[in-house]
Amino acid sequence: MIKASIIGASGYSGAEIVRLLMQHPKAEAKYITSTTYKAQKFSEIYPNATELTELKFSAYSAEEALKQGDVVFVALPHGASMKYVPELLQDKKHKVIDLSGDFRFAEESIYEEWYNTAHLAPELLGKAVYGLPEINRKNIANSNFISNPGCFATGAILAAAPLLSKGLIYEQYIIINSLTGISGAGRMVSDNVHFCSCDENISSYKVGGVHQHIPEIEQELTKLAANEVKISFTPHLIPVSRGIYTTINARLINENTTAELIEIFQNFYEESHFVKILNQGHYPQLKAVAGTNYCHIGMNIDERTGMVIVISALDNLVKGASGQAIQNMNIMFGLDEKIGLTTPGLYP
Amino acid sequence: MIKASIIGASGYSGAEIVRLLMQHPKAEAKYITSTTYKAQKFSEIYPNATELTELKFSAYSAEEALKQGDVVFVALPHGASMKYVPELLQDKKHKVIDLSGDFRFAEESIYEEWYNTAHLAPELLGKAVYGLPEINRKNIANSNFISNPGCFATGAILAAAPLLSKGLIYEQYIIINSLTGISGAGRMVSDNVHFCSCDENISSYKVGGVHQHIPEIEQELTKLAANEVKISFTPHLIPVSRGIYTTINARLINENTTAELIEIFQNFYEESHFVKILNQGHYPQLKAVAGTNYCHIGMNIDERTGMVIVISALDNLVKGASGQAIQNMNIMFGLDEKIGLTTPGLYP
Amino acid sequence: MIKASIIGASGYSGAEIVRLLMQHPKAEAKYITSTTYKAQKFSEIYPNATELTELKFSAYSAEEALKQGDVVFVALPHGASMKYVPELLQDKKHKVIDLSGDFRFAEESIYEEWYNTAHLAPELLGKAVYGLPEINRKNIANSNFISNPGCFATGAILAAAPLLSKGLIYEQYIIINSLTGISGAGRMVSDNVHFCSCDENISSYKVGGVHQHIPEIEQELTKLAANEVKISFTPHLIPVSRGIYTTINARLINENTTAELIEIFQNFYEESHFVKILNQGHYPQLKAVAGTNYCHIGMNIDERTGMVIVISALDNLVKGASGQAIQNMNIMFGLDEKIGLTTPGLYP
Amino acid sequence: MIKASIIGASGYSGAEIVRLLMQHPKAEAKYITSTTYKAQKFSEIYPNATELTELKFSAYSAEEALKQGDVVFVALPHGASMKYVPELLQDKKHKVIDLSGDFRFAEESIYEEWYNTAHLAPELLGKAVYGLPEINRKNIANSNFISNPGCFATGAILAAAPLLSKGLIYEQYIIINSLTGISGAGRMVSDNVHFCSCDENISSYKVGGVHQHIPEIEQELTKLAANEVKISFTPHLIPVSRGIYTTINARLINENTTAELIEIFQNFYEESHFVKILNQGHYPQLKAVAGTNYCHIGMNIDERTGMVIVISALDNLVKGASGQAIQNMNIMFGLDEKIGLTTPGLYP
Repeated sequence: MIKASIIGASGYSGAEIVRLLMQHPKAEAKYITSTTYKAQKFSEIYPNATELTELKFSAYSAEEALKQGDVVFVALPHGASMKYVPELLQDKKHKVIDLSGDFRFAEESIYEEWYNTAHLAPELLGKAVYGLPEINRKNIANSNFISNPGCFATGAILAAAPLLSKGLIYEQYIIINSLTGISGAGRMVSDNVHFCSCDENISSYKVGGVHQHIPEIEQELTKLAANEVKISFTPHLIPVSRGIYTTINARLINENTTAELIEIFQNFYEESHFVKILNQGHYPQLKAVAGTNYCHIGMNIDERTGMVIVISALDNLVKGASGQAIQNMNIMFGLDEKIGLTTPGLYP
Repeated sequence: MIKASIIGASGYSGAEIVRLLMQHPKAEAKYITSTTYKAQKFSEIYPNATELTELKFSAYSAEEALKQGDVVFVALPHGASMKYVPELLQDKKHKVIDLSGDFRFAEESIYEEWYNTAHLAPELLGKAVYGLPEINRKNIANSNFISNPGCFATGAILAAAPLLSKGLIYEQYIIINSLTGISGAGRMVSDNVHFCSCDENISSYKVGGVHQHIPEIEQELTKLAANEVKISFTPHLIPVSRGIYTTINARLINENTTAELIEIFQNFYEESHFVKILNQGHYPQLKAVAGTNYCHIGMNIDERTGMVIVISALDNLVKGASGQAIQNMNIMFGLDEKIGLTTPGLYP
Repeated sequence: MIKASIIGASGYSGAEIVRLLMQHPKAEAKYITSTTYKAQKFSEIYPNATELTELKFSAYSAEEALKQGDVVFVALPHGASMKYVPELLQDKKHKVIDLSGDFRFAEESIYEEWYNTAHLAPELLGKAVYGLPEINRKNIANSNFISNPGCFATGAILAAAPLLSKGLIYEQYIIINSLTGISGAGRMVSDNVHFCSCDENISSYKVGGVHQHIPEIEQELTKLAANEVKISFTPHLIPVSRGIYTTINARLINENTTAELIEIFQNFYEESHFVKILNQGHYPQLKAVAGTNYCHIGMNIDERTGMVIVISALDNLVKGASGQAIQNMNIMFGLDEKIGLTTPGLYP
Repeated sequence: MIKASIIGASGYSGAEIVRLLMQHPKAEAKYITSTTYKAQKFSEIYPNATELTELKFSAYSAEEALKQGDVVFVALPHGASMKYVPELLQDKKHKVIDLSGDFRFAEESIYEEWYNTAHLAPELLGKAVYGLPEINRKNIANSNFISNPGCFATGAILAAAPLLSKGLIYEQYIIINSLTGISGAGRMVSDNVHFCSCDENISSYKVGGVHQHIPEIEQELTKLAANEVKISFTPHLIPVSRGIYTTINARLINENTTAELIEIFQNFYEESHFVKILNQGHYPQLKAVAGTNYCHIGMNIDERTGMVIVISALDNLVKGASGQAIQNMNIMFGLDEKIGLTTPGLYP
């Protein structure tokens, strides 16, 4: 049994790791931390866990995290994570999976430009493997330090990767519009997440190419493409709890058919259980993947404009965060990556 | 491996059995029927199953249902079920679990009064065991024919049973107000289930003691009580997809404390994994049980009026229908009743 | 043109007064206060007002409030209101409408018991007229100091008043279950109002006869009844932004028909434009009254139990708060009470 | 008082005209038709109108429509409208406002290509004025026959018009992603509008440049631009009842600043009360305009890609349909276009 420590387990991503591990046959959460709720039971904060776990939140201790866990998940906000990760990595025997944006870039300057803060552990930049198994499975298997992708980045990269990898679209400028559920804003309360601010509402934010997932998407897609990838990305807030729905407009270089593209996607993801390519004429429904580690992708060509529209849907807290983290854990420990993650979604 | 046939598998309850069996380690759906969608893939109608099952809907054949299934789930509307169940029962070797209201009563007259139609198989009335494992586990284990409880009935009976069983409340008149998610109305479209009719709305229906789950609740609770139980029941429609939230007002006979009642409930459900009694000061949250087979129950005494308020929450499609049906199947086949049903809920 | 000052105009009730006055042909908001947002434009906080008003929030000054307003609406939380009202009332020429619970009781001990705090202006208790126009219209017309009813209290009193006034039901014990939209919790953020805590959820709170609107309901209903009224009241939180939906179970003294009761209600509210009694077989829909000052009431008798079920629906921020406050203002200033308040609801 | 007939008044757009006319000081609905609900009261189908109107649905009669109405609103689905409009226009004295897509094109071939049906009244093509007052006010004032714009088209054209009119963006290829509330699908029930299909879900449809509003948007924008406009348009379905939220990505020809663009928009819409240009750093919130005739527009430049992102929000049933129809009526009758349409939105 793999033992896991989760740092920041009262936030949505951390708690989602706890939930997913409750269903995992080969791993279990042993040590969970929270500054706000220390000494309280997990199930007092997350009522879905009522009588299903006896876990209690502890105040953070690196020593305990390493003692009780074979793997440490760091589920802290960006900016906080880099304060904790270095000491967790010192001991070379543990595996660390960081869910923040702090270790996703090779270059310090990019981090500082997009996150507006100095990096506190620049020596670790470039050391983490970008934990998107569908494009990076082998490197993940050989690493002890994973930087888990951003939720928007997961949806965008999975939807665009086959096209760029096969040289089918112009790398500049790819238009990406994403819709996120409110849990994407985290558990911290603010006017923006008040039910009455979100319900029956749609809003957009960080409009104009300023969202911090942009450099991550460009960095990873550029690795797959012949030329540098540039995207224009706009996020929107939608009144659902979970999910990211991403619509990409890209210009085709050649005259492909939709059927050809679908086949290319199917081949690209042939070994990737969690990515499902929908048949022609079908497009993702967010509800079908909510609560799951699946990503559904559908597409169609707009012949009038020579564009392809690719649409992906996933759960921001599962495939976009905690489920993917566990998928990475499975790979790192030599397990089948699917273990503990195959629960289908609810419909209705 | 237990093989299951599901009659009426394109409706919400039938499809939910398919979904739950996808996660069940000891049972699998083999034969599923639908008049409307015959020859179509299940996953075309339920996109959460995309590439997770190859099942296709068949037109109904009793012969096939019995050949392919060790157990037959009948997930048809009331009135339809009684046309199919008799032939499925003729062969004494199969187990049949009917999810409709057609076989819940011992007396034909009660059925005809509340369902406004003649019963087509009155010889079978009284033959089925009422499939609420928490109060009927042994009888279920010894039966081949289960009548699965109604969704409202499950929530009401679980919340009231300990009080009546211990003679703590007056049997007349217990006030039951229930809130149901829209999936309770079924998959059939009508003005009432249009998103724009439900969203940001609350409505009530069958007001005035006319809902067909009333006699079922009274029949089962009376079996547990010293005197005949009479309830006043009002259902309300709430803008959530899944769930039933039931608030009971009952008059206490003696001066109990809330702590005493909670202990009585805990003892009553000591062997019932799926019923969770919340600590004093805590009340159920629907979201915590949505998608699960759990029923959460909380309570408090109103000292000013000598009443106890008991509140239960469950998922109408799982503990209120298909999950309970599988729980019954587990018991009928001698398995641990929990198998395949312990997935915790999502939160957020 | 009546000039109005609104104290606490950045909260939901205060802002709703501003919104309603934007449509009022004989009154206008002149002075609005907010501690948090002083010097900011109203429309920056309430985007529905974009370019529709130039009002800015000021820090509170009693002098300014009285100078700029013929009427002062105090839209502060209970406990805060009683600190401001006394000085606003000193000048006998102004009209004051307080929306908090601070001045709804004649007796100090009741306030202190239910609000758990000492009253800071006990000399004013019993001085305010309870501002429910449908039962108190004349007194309101003759008063300069109105205590505006609570939102739950408005729904409960309107639904029960005709029955008690005509001696048709037993006064003990009336069961009241109410469902409230999230705006009832106010604009202040907390875990409980996070979108992800409310969406797809139902919860209950202050279970067991402890909600502070109980004594207010009992006090006002007792005035209408032959004997002391006692209620058992349970509030529930529902995923809609606006609205209160109240279901009352009461035991009939005589054998009435539903048609008789409906006629009694129609007569009782004959002069009350904002209360609509629905035809037999129809029950309120929350959506039909959201955003309006209307209260819809429907009912049916449960013959099996000798109970009547009365259901009312209203918008907690309009008829349950700010619309009612303006209705009171209209009456106090000798205007038709309907002025500025007859906008119908949206459907869908 | 202007008298209005509304053909198809039980659908959402038709009913919305009835609702808006209930608030209009200079016009009133006199004659409303419905095939399904003839002889029933409007308020039985639309409970928000309870006791607020005595209007009853009639079966359609052209004679009655023309006799009772000075203006006839035709609120029928496309394909149906063209069967009724010709006879309503024969009498040259009446004004006709058609809300369908049947008369929006000058060319028969375009209609037939995009609507997949033969046009039944081709002699009327090109005769109607396209009823978007913000770009066509004068022509509307001089016409008796208005073709009211599509809901998506209104949002897209208002957001793009200033840019194209001033030659600031490349006409090919403008990327338009729109999110629509479920009422956009109409009142007719289908699996797609079942609450449980929409709630907590996002889906997309008519992906790949096939939505019938595309030629309308291109036709009207091309009139304003130097060159032919080509768009790539993708609609998405979002779990709100009302609203259209449109995000446009377009490539700037010159190096403008966002401040410059905002000023250009403000000037362009200087005389257009219903279009509000938000200050820099602010983006539309759907909720702020729901239930209103307002359209909010915000924008920002993405300097990295040389693109401008323009976002508009409106209510599909008001500014996107019925409110705009009444705005057109006001203009046609020489009234201030704002009359009866200035109710602000609700927030929360």
